[in-house]
Amino acid sequence: MGKNLITGGLGFIGYHLAKLLLDEGEEVVLFDVVSESKLTKDIRDKVSVVRSDLSNWVQVLDAVKDNNVSCIFHAGAALPPTSEQCPAAAYSVNVTGTFNVLEAARLFGVDSVIYLSTLATFGPGVPPIVPNDASQRPPNMYGVTKVCGERLGEYYHSRFGINFRGVRYPPLIGLGRFGQAQSAYTYLVIQEAALGRPYTIYVDKSTKIAILYVKDAVRSLIDLKKAEDGKLTTRVYNLYGFTVSAQELADKVKKYIPEAQIDFKPDPAMIKAVENLPERMDDTLARQDWNWAPRYSIDQAVENFIEEVRANKAIFE
Amino acid sequence: MGKNLITGGLGFIGYHLAKLLLDEGEEVVLFDVVSESKLTKDIRDKVSVVRSDLSNWVQVLDAVKDNNVSCIFHAGAALPPTSEQCPAAAYSVNVTGTFNVLEAARLFGVDSVIYLSTLATFGPGVPPIVPNDASQRPPNMYGVTKVCGERLGEYYHSRFGINFRGVRYPPLIGLGRFGQAQSAYTYLVIQEAALGRPYTIYVDKSTKIAILYVKDAVRSLIDLKKAEDGKLTTRVYNLYGFTVSAQELADKVKKYIPEAQIDFKPDPAMIKAVENLPERMDDTLARQDWNWAPRYSIDQAVENFIEEVRANKAIFE
Amino acid sequence: MGKNLITGGLGFIGYHLAKLLLDEGEEVVLFDVVSESKLTKDIRDKVSVVRSDLSNWVQVLDAVKDNNVSCIFHAGAALPPTSEQCPAAAYSVNVTGTFNVLEAARLFGVDSVIYLSTLATFGPGVPPIVPNDASQRPPNMYGVTKVCGERLGEYYHSRFGINFRGVRYPPLIGLGRFGQAQSAYTYLVIQEAALGRPYTIYVDKSTKIAILYVKDAVRSLIDLKKAEDGKLTTRVYNLYGFTVSAQELADKVKKYIPEAQIDFKPDPAMIKAVENLPERMDDTLARQDWNWAPRYSIDQAVENFIEEVRANKAIFE
Amino acid sequence: MGKNLITGGLGFIGYHLAKLLLDEGEEVVLFDVVSESKLTKDIRDKVSVVRSDLSNWVQVLDAVKDNNVSCIFHAGAALPPTSEQCPAAAYSVNVTGTFNVLEAARLFGVDSVIYLSTLATFGPGVPPIVPNDASQRPPNMYGVTKVCGERLGEYYHSRFGINFRGVRYPPLIGLGRFGQAQSAYTYLVIQEAALGRPYTIYVDKSTKIAILYVKDAVRSLIDLKKAEDGKLTTRVYNLYGFTVSAQELADKVKKYIPEAQIDFKPDPAMIKAVENLPERMDDTLARQDWNWAPRYSIDQAVENFIEEVRANKAIFE
Repeated sequence: MGKNLITGGLGFIGYHLAKLLLDEGEEVVLFDVVSESKLTKDIRDKVSVVRSDLSNWVQVLDAVKDNNVSCIFHAGAALPPTSEQCPAAAYSVNVTGTFNVLEAARLFGVDSVIYLSTLATFGPGVPPIVPNDASQRPPNMYGVTKVCGERLGEYYHSRFGINFRGVRYPPLIGLGRFGQAQSAYTYLVIQEAALGRPYTIYVDKSTKIAILYVKDAVRSLIDLKKAEDGKLTTRVYNLYGFTVSAQELADKVKKYIPEAQIDFKPDPAMIKAVENLPERMDDTLARQDWNWAPRYSIDQAVENFIEEVRANKAIFE
Repeated sequence: MGKNLITGGLGFIGYHLAKLLLDEGEEVVLFDVVSESKLTKDIRDKVSVVRSDLSNWVQVLDAVKDNNVSCIFHAGAALPPTSEQCPAAAYSVNVTGTFNVLEAARLFGVDSVIYLSTLATFGPGVPPIVPNDASQRPPNMYGVTKVCGERLGEYYHSRFGINFRGVRYPPLIGLGRFGQAQSAYTYLVIQEAALGRPYTIYVDKSTKIAILYVKDAVRSLIDLKKAEDGKLTTRVYNLYGFTVSAQELADKVKKYIPEAQIDFKPDPAMIKAVENLPERMDDTLARQDWNWAPRYSIDQAVENFIEEVRANKAIFE
Repeated sequence: MGKNLITGGLGFIGYHLAKLLLDEGEEVVLFDVVSESKLTKDIRDKVSVVRSDLSNWVQVLDAVKDNNVSCIFHAGAALPPTSEQCPAAAYSVNVTGTFNVLEAARLFGVDSVIYLSTLATFGPGVPPIVPNDASQRPPNMYGVTKVCGERLGEYYHSRFGINFRGVRYPPLIGLGRFGQAQSAYTYLVIQEAALGRPYTIYVDKSTKIAILYVKDAVRSLIDLKKAEDGKLTTRVYNLYGFTVSAQELADKVKKYIPEAQIDFKPDPAMIKAVENLPERMDDTLARQDWNWAPRYSIDQAVENFIEEVRANKAIFE
Repeated sequence: MGKNLITGGLGFIGYHLAKLLLDEGEEVVLFDVVSESKLTKDIRDKVSVVRSDLSNWVQVLDAVKDNNVSCIFHAGAALPPTSEQCPAAAYSVNVTGTFNVLEAARLFGVDSVIYLSTLATFGPGVPPIVPNDASQRPPNMYGVTKVCGERLGEYYHSRFGINFRGVRYPPLIGLGRFGQAQSAYTYLVIQEAALGRPYTIYVDKSTKIAILYVKDAVRSLIDLKKAEDGKLTTRVYNLYGFTVSAQELADKVKKYIPEAQIDFKPDPAMIKAVENLPERMDDTLARQDWNWAPRYSIDQAVENFIEEVRANKAIFE
């Protein structure tokens, strides 16, 4: 059996996925445009790292050819705000990069391409509990490029028999997430408390959001990869963890860190941005087709996340 | 006011659009990868022709920069079966080509980009009367690339203020259509009769299909371009002409050409392929937002098409 | 042993090379952006044809991967005047196209890449008998792109062990050459006479030029491919056939076609353009390293060319 | 008058050039793939910085269009060892990147493109004092890509009238140079002594090399930009500072830092690598055509370099 190539391998999701694959005894190659990351230090000697650029087709093909790859987990992408500040870079990395990944899979006989898509592929106007087959007309470049990737992958499956499968994540929480997307308060409130630092939430106490713990998120990728093909009724699946209000989230943190200093200073613009995100995604298809279910309750997710931050303080220095 | 650049300008739709724009006193530049076409002979001395390749960004930018272009009608694309035989070419021409067109518009201040999309962006499983906001997960590369183009255009509108507007056509009939798509019998039965040649329809007499006359199709592009922006509730609109059974179509032809020799020899594969196409598209939004309505009844379309074929027999030699 | 892929395979040189390879019992795949050519009709059923674009890396890789290719004769290129009218197209086809060919060879283990370069890589200021290692600073885009190709190929040889070898041709004469480069009179005077048509030479009777018969040119490619690697002292070799004045050329034609109508109407601009071409290339290295020598004297070349034109009149209709 | 865009602007040469341009009252925009550099801290608030990628044409065009650029100093490139480890990246950044720069200049009417080339464009076999018009057949990818850039630039000058001018540097010494090229000892021996650290030279005491002080190098770019066009007899000029043996260099350092600890531990491979570099470049043409002459003697260069290192110790921490 071949190796697992993870694009964006030194990032937040790449790290957690690599760890889980290593735990299962699999071989892992991390593909990333950077070559160092504080996050991945503990697994660095157990994986190969290829410093390469998704938008450079030769580098993508070489990574696949040189490493006996049988599965590509395609997590690499230009994310907001970069994708919105420079749509041309997002086009190169996310659209052409995904085309390069699919072509590498086709040309060198890779069995599976597991694609990471996002709730952000759904735009305004979708039903509150977003169905798996809802219309995808996203308002930002990140979402646009992910829609293009889903469609290209589906085509490479039907036309060339590449085992393309994908998931759409809601915002994730977990060790190593970074950045200032509108949903950032959901991980920051936990992470900052675990680091003993105060944090001010910028939405209303009642603002609700769908989130998923990163360990469930990466577990789903492996489960989906192993799912029986005959049972799959679509190629890309909505995932969903739990819906939580900002107040509930703060309460959960205080349950595990009673001394946590958490304030609220609602910012109307941010509230609106968060409210534009669906409160819930319909993950029925994933549950039916390949027995998807999150293993972490909100309590377990918060507790585990706190533990991991405390055990890895070095990455926050 | 600037010129109109029509990509795919020497093709079927490009020709009819150019004629209509010339009739309205507009200046027209035809952009195409070929430099000659029997079809466009009668307008050749009234237009400029740029022989260029959509997948070459320099050529796209030069066409815009050198011609004082204020509107791009983006009709150029790799069509089936080419798009399915060589998806990599379709990716370059249709996806990267559309990116190049949008970038050219942004970099050189083109006011409007009018995009030609297609019913083929909708895959199986959509409602029988396809709503404007139906989910778009097409089964072929042509449809995939057109979905990518719609999304990229919408983003360039919201992010950069480019006046991107588009239409989704059902199969068109009219002088100069060519090729062997599953809907080909709808134009061939008329064209061949007009040329005095027998024709055998490969679907059932009762097989129904949605079609649109090319003159209504190109008229819609100009109307959409002129539509008041404040009234537009979306960026890409379903269009619809009429639904007709193969028998009705044969009858209409015989009404105008009583001696027409039309047979039926149904091919189950083709029947199924046609039945996969929606029988009807919901064009309510286009009707509401910018008063779209086809001007040609089926009778008028058949009659006019016959006239045009007879007046242009040279292009069939 | 694998097949021979000839890029630009439906062109003038591609055709003659394919014929010679077929004569030697080799298998041939013709790669070209067009799919039909009058010239190649007599070999069409003995070769495979891949209609593809050098500037599309997927198409280049597929052509190599799908055809068990062990040698690529890389003759395809945008030529003057196209290369000068659209340098961006020449960049894509000639520079990126050559990069694509070299990468395809590296990625899929092709043994040899035989490269067709040109006298046009040398600019003004080189010695009258151009040495093999003369400085290459050409005045036109065609020459520029061919210099880039030579350098890239040499690097792929030293870095990746690809057996890259090349030749620099002077202007060629022979059946199927077309176009209006400054040296065009050298083939037109023979071809037109063979077709029984008058021809007016646009240079002085005394204007001299170095030329090579196409059959010697393509023979050299096969000889170079087979040459012992240890004897090669460079990677790209000057070739040279004979130097002939316009008057001598006209005399040779009349020797074989006494009734030929040949006039002179010298055009100063064209005379100057031709005089910018070196009168002679030093092919000593090719002679020493792999026993290069033209087999056709000028008399034999003219006689054979006339025969071939007369036997293939259909391609001139 | 427009701004000066420096590609590779946060690098060693970019920094020194920016400083000199600022001293002359010019406006400077730094274009680089990274957004931070310790080196450029002291000028950071006097320049604009564009974080962009040369291989992304949209980013190159935007940098030019958004900044009213009248001159591009094109210093950005993938250097050894990166260029040799990943030739495909070097192709994208150096060859396609230079094409993008030239196209940006053409499309948006930039007056001048000043190109930084290198002694490394000359391969083995050139005369010991390398003439300006020597043959350029370099052994490494860096040199290959720089040859391509020279030829493309010359063509854009003759074809489109872009004021393309370039220089070929020998190895440079000065504050902020980094990396481990074969010539690295020439700057390290000075820099390390200035930092109070011991240094072991890896070549023979008698090993000679041609070098140039970075302040003369960047001064030349501004002088060349201002040179009268009618006096230029070529487009790319060899530059040369002084030739110095390793022993002489060590002596010069000790003249200014008597306590410097400098050892020799010759490594035959490195000696050979350095000896492959020409000992001298013929810069006669630059001297004749635009009065090029280095202003720093070897003593002045060493003294000034030491001063600058001591005044900028922070960048070495």
